[in-house]
Amino acid sequence: MNLRSILETCLYADDLAEAEAFYTRLLGLEPLAVEPGKFVFYRLDGAMLLIFDAHESAHNDEVPPHGATGPSHVCFRVEPAEIPGWKLRLAEIEIPLEMEHIWPNGAHSLYFRDPAGNSLEIAPWSLWEKFKEA
Amino acid sequence: MNLRSILETCLYADDLAEAEAFYTRLLGLEPLAVEPGKFVFYRLDGAMLLIFDAHESAHNDEVPPHGATGPSHVCFRVEPAEIPGWKLRLAEIEIPLEMEHIWPNGAHSLYFRDPAGNSLEIAPWSLWEKFKEA
Repeated sequence: MNLRSILETCLYADDLAEAEAFYTRLLGLEPLAVEPGKFVFYRLDGAMLLIFDAHESAHNDEVPPHGATGPSHVCFRVEPAEIPGWKLRLAEIEIPLEMEHIWPNGAHSLYFRDPAGNSLEIAPWSLWEKFKEA
Repeated sequence: MNLRSILETCLYADDLAEAEAFYTRLLGLEPLAVEPGKFVFYRLDGAMLLIFDAHESAHNDEVPPHGATGPSHVCFRVEPAEIPGWKLRLAEIEIPLEMEHIWPNGAHSLYFRDPAGNSLEIAPWSLWEKFKEA
């Protein structure tokens, strides 16, 4: 009995309509649930990406409150061979690439931002499977 | 080619030594990498939990900066049958339960806090697989 899998990853956005338009385009997926001004939830493979309005989630009284401000970071996992395709796809869906980074172990990351300023990354598992200190 | 899996979930903590002690105990796992005052990284099953000092990660110049303040939220995925065991385990490792919640679809969540105040949850996939609006 160990905690080895993450079920919910959260981000915060002030403008949830803008966040929904962006993530629906990026993920190619309609949200599972939307409560305008409160949250937008996406169901991925066995895990959730939850985007909250921080002020609203900090005043939730059904479950314990939370709500962070400032840019956070999420990385999506892809196969190494998909990285060049994702570089093209981001250009096609008009998401500007902020940085391309090659790690000491050879893994390749693409970085960009969501409209709220959160730092997003696309990278393969090999980045961590073969982790080397920089 | 779709983004359906999250490789990195981040939290922020002002006191990373305290965060490391807490997460090592909670996860029953030594960190993959620690840079004192900067970060503590845990390798889970095919995904990473990254805990950063927000001030340091906001001044990173190797990769795009990020850093949020205020409590965020992460949920760990367990099997439904493990929830009662986790309630006992949290008591054993002296992590106070903040709330137990039963969702409209019958899924059961346990809520607690890390030392930085981040809201943590333990829940089964059935919470989202059989999602019902509250």
